[in-house]
Amino acid sequence: MTSVEELKLRVRELENELIKCKQKRCTAIPRIDKMSAEVVDSNPYSRLMALKRMGIVEDYEKIRTFTVAVVGVGGVGSVTAEMLTRCGIGKVIQTSHYYINISFYHSFQPNASDGQCPSVQHALTINPDVQFETHNYNITTMDNFAHFMDRISHGALQDGKAVDLVLSCVDNFEARMAINTACNELSQIWMESGVSENAVSGHIQLIIPGETACFACAPPLVVAANIDEKTLKREGVCAASLPTTMGVVAGILVQNVLKYLLKFGTVSHYLGYNAMQDFFPTMAMKANPTCDDRHCRKRQDVYKKKEAERPKKVVEQAVEEVVVHEENDWGIELVSEQTDQELQAASGPVPDLPEGITVAYTIPDKETGTSEGETVEETEQSLEELMAQMRTM
Amino acid sequence: MTSVEELKLRVRELENELIKCKQKRCTAIPRIDKMSAEVVDSNPYSRLMALKRMGIVEDYEKIRTFTVAVVGVGGVGSVTAEMLTRCGIGKVIQTSHYYINISFYHSFQPNASDGQCPSVQHALTINPDVQFETHNYNITTMDNFAHFMDRISHGALQDGKAVDLVLSCVDNFEARMAINTACNELSQIWMESGVSENAVSGHIQLIIPGETACFACAPPLVVAANIDEKTLKREGVCAASLPTTMGVVAGILVQNVLKYLLKFGTVSHYLGYNAMQDFFPTMAMKANPTCDDRHCRKRQDVYKKKEAERPKKVVEQAVEEVVVHEENDWGIELVSEQTDQELQAASGPVPDLPEGITVAYTIPDKETGTSEGETVEETEQSLEELMAQMRTM
Repeated sequence: MTSVEELKLRVRELENELIKCKQKRCTAIPRIDKMSAEVVDSNPYSRLMALKRMGIVEDYEKIRTFTVAVVGVGGVGSVTAEMLTRCGIGKVIQTSHYYINISFYHSFQPNASDGQCPSVQHALTINPDVQFETHNYNITTMDNFAHFMDRISHGALQDGKAVDLVLSCVDNFEARMAINTACNELSQIWMESGVSENAVSGHIQLIIPGETACFACAPPLVVAANIDEKTLKREGVCAASLPTTMGVVAGILVQNVLKYLLKFGTVSHYLGYNAMQDFFPTMAMKANPTCDDRHCRKRQDVYKKKEAERPKKVVEQAVEEVVVHEENDWGIELVSEQTDQELQAASGPVPDLPEGITVAYTIPDKETGTSEGETVEETEQSLEELMAQMRTM
Repeated sequence: MTSVEELKLRVRELENELIKCKQKRCTAIPRIDKMSAEVVDSNPYSRLMALKRMGIVEDYEKIRTFTVAVVGVGGVGSVTAEMLTRCGIGKVIQTSHYYINISFYHSFQPNASDGQCPSVQHALTINPDVQFETHNYNITTMDNFAHFMDRISHGALQDGKAVDLVLSCVDNFEARMAINTACNELSQIWMESGVSENAVSGHIQLIIPGETACFACAPPLVVAANIDEKTLKREGVCAASLPTTMGVVAGILVQNVLKYLLKFGTVSHYLGYNAMQDFFPTMAMKANPTCDDRHCRKRQDVYKKKEAERPKKVVEQAVEEVVVHEENDWGIELVSEQTDQELQAASGPVPDLPEGITVAYTIPDKETGTSEGETVEETEQSLEELMAQMRTM
């Protein structure tokens, strides 16, 4: 037995045999046809179904109809897949560049528990009601990318449908860009996740093609400068990893997956995690009209058209306002508190400023600076005097 | 992985795994005497030790000298114990009211994977270098409480020493009060954790007896009113639970344990988690001088004395300032932005206010309200006019 095909077949055979063996040995949990809210020790869904009674989720059972693709099964990805499984998701499509074995789970990451057991075998012993589809390949090669695109668009529980969400849990930009390209082309909503090299910060991000910034809209410098990131990695050096950081990032990721799929709470557009200070910054990034990805730009056009056709509502005003600053290289948009007139007025009287630099404080327009068009007389009083006057009001 | 050599290796791995599985042997990970930073696939500590090279932790190996007690092994407790194990903690003392079996792990919580396997067996398969001591009892009964106190004060790796930290992962007030009583008496630093009944919010809290508020300093109403919480629980109804929320709360808990033990970053005094909005509030609560727990009051005296004896430093001023409001029943302290003089000035001229009520806005002292002792003339201008004048400055 020496040919690659024969060996691949043998690997698949052995993996299946091992799954069966593990199921026999570890699993005492029977498959459950219908989720029940009954509070008995033998019902593993009772506490999830309690979310309905508590008024949090309207229809928790719906979780079983959803399919989520998890790309990358490392620190964040393995915990993500495990959490989805515990939540009773319908189907998980897992892809990983590496074979999922002990060598992959450095630092006693989740699933290292199983020694050489693949992550999926572990997940199956947690909840046999979840369906799994796994692909051990690198999605950035052409053939695999085509296959990956096909599985995203046709891999859902209902045959031939697209998955409900793609989760990026990869550890390199090349793979992120591949997911980004695929999702822009397919108009597939996805979530990005990441943990810093020093393992003490991370983030999650919701990407709705055409509506929110995609990965290419504001790319990291390494990507924008077209540097091969492999050249930045040194022999004998690996990134740090903390089970705690991975748990928090996977936790906020899957929590937002649940909120998105089951329609409760507010789905975060971007949520950061700074472990050193326990700081969790949030922000929202709009799509970049000059994004390098042509599918992204196409999605933006479709989105704008759709938005324009929609009847205007008060709640939508914040979304509709499009502010574009084309001065910067990446076309990143910043929504300013100052109006363009204010900026012009500000840069007017101040001399000797290099191009592109404006003063920090601007001179407001006399008309707009007052209420109801009243004019204000210049004052001789100091700021302190005015402040003191206000306090006496 | 497509080369014949790699595939052959994989086949060999899988065959060995299958043999082990058939022999019903779970653990394939050998014990490791000394943590190494070497970057090889077989070293599970390489990514934790990388924290040193990245400049985050000065001495990661020290983790092996610490002992942490985890009280309660439910949703948060089981993930907490697992994370500590993956981080390579020296010893875990686990106590749980319930026998740790499938019936306990509702909603496919972590460790449900093991079917009837106790949580500790699971943890041992993750990292055989960690020592475990388990007690399946209810710590609130007199005998068990005495035993629990003994294990906290003498259960550390170094014989006869106290544990480094106690973590409360229990789901009821009675058990929390027992831990609080024990830790106040022993002057044992501990961390509290909790998840709401509807599973979409949680918190962690650091309690340093005498220095920060203990659980009895500002007790929940049920505890303060001496209500038996069992009477509040109804037959056939259970609290909701989400693996995501449990993962986030356990993650921020163990992350703060690591920061506290290994001295990096800032340990949070109180960190909340609102899953619906992805909001993470922080706060700090000082000890209550009229706390019902006499040991807490004793620790406060000791702390005050120690603080008074310390040489004063600028950075310590915030801690030294003690503001006491004895008007409220629980003696909860609020640090006001107003001075006592301001409050007196405020309650002076306003008539007909019931005792203890003051006006929301205070009249500032003329001297302190202005800069450099200038006097301010009463103005006829409106607030809007003054604001507009300021913008023109």
